[in-house]
Amino acid sequence: MRVLGIDTGLAATGYGVIEATGGVCRLVEGGVIETAASEALTARLSRIHAAIGQVIEDFSPEQVVVEDLYAKYRHPRTAIMMGHARGVILLAAAERGLAVESYQASLVKRALTGSGRASKQQVRRMVAQVLRLPEPPSPDHVGDALALAICHANPARAGKDLPPAVARAIAQAKGERR
Amino acid sequence: MRVLGIDTGLAATGYGVIEATGGVCRLVEGGVIETAASEALTARLSRIHAAIGQVIEDFSPEQVVVEDLYAKYRHPRTAIMMGHARGVILLAAAERGLAVESYQASLVKRALTGSGRASKQQVRRMVAQVLRLPEPPSPDHVGDALALAICHANPARAGKDLPPAVARAIAQAKGERR
Repeated sequence: MRVLGIDTGLAATGYGVIEATGGVCRLVEGGVIETAASEALTARLSRIHAAIGQVIEDFSPEQVVVEDLYAKYRHPRTAIMMGHARGVILLAAAERGLAVESYQASLVKRALTGSGRASKQQVRRMVAQVLRLPEPPSPDHVGDALALAICHANPARAGKDLPPAVARAIAQAKGERR
Repeated sequence: MRVLGIDTGLAATGYGVIEATGGVCRLVEGGVIETAASEALTARLSRIHAAIGQVIEDFSPEQVVVEDLYAKYRHPRTAIMMGHARGVILLAAAERGLAVESYQASLVKRALTGSGRASKQQVRRMVAQVLRLPEPPSPDHVGDALALAICHANPARAGKDLPPAVARAIAQAKGERR
């Protein structure tokens, strides 16, 4: 299974493609799409939409994974602008007939580290471990995107890494969205 | 000049096309794109994106106008979902090479009624008056979209309706966005 995780943002959208085979995850590609606040909003959205479309075409994922929206945001205006980016990203996936799954941040953390309150650093270190990388992916947005992809691919099914309770939580979250 | 005003929303996006000639505005088309909360978010966004694209292709506006984001929202989560819709709407305009202008709600109210604190009802009544419609456009989202288009077309330039201070405010807002 090939999974594309996306850490959606207007200024920076991280993405990561993994291949999951028999419970083993392999890094295929990762990167960041950056746009400048000095550009017109239409131009920024066009670029994000085109770039994610290109990633999908280049790497043919079967599934796209993004983070669930939070209940609350510290910076609502930034969250609304993130919503603009998330909208064109979901559209790029839909245009290519791809399903999009979303997971809460705490579930991603649990899936990677066993704790829903793990730090972002701990999660990124586990991303490196799962993908057998010499160090956590850089920039951070790539690590966050890869964590989403790994959470979905769920190596626990093959008895790797994840406590059974976490595997069940992931399976349940998937079921609820079907 | 042909102007497409759009009242962006995920559940309901209103649109209105006007033709402004020598300071006289004429209604060309108006409508609402509705999506249901029971649909997948990707499906809702795809439909909004396609429908706005179709309106642009059917009525060939030279300009798209949306409302500025507010400083604060009473319902941040709804605002983030509106952001998703606004994102794919701006993308649909950008894909067709159209410029997008945005105006603050208070400026639209002032342009239509002379007061930035006019009620939505007063604005919609003025929309009907400017476009010589027998009654305010229905549903309300269409009236709000037409108000945006009229604000941009600015019949005051031809000496109609608008106090000079309002005309100047609009001209200034346009200048700032260039």
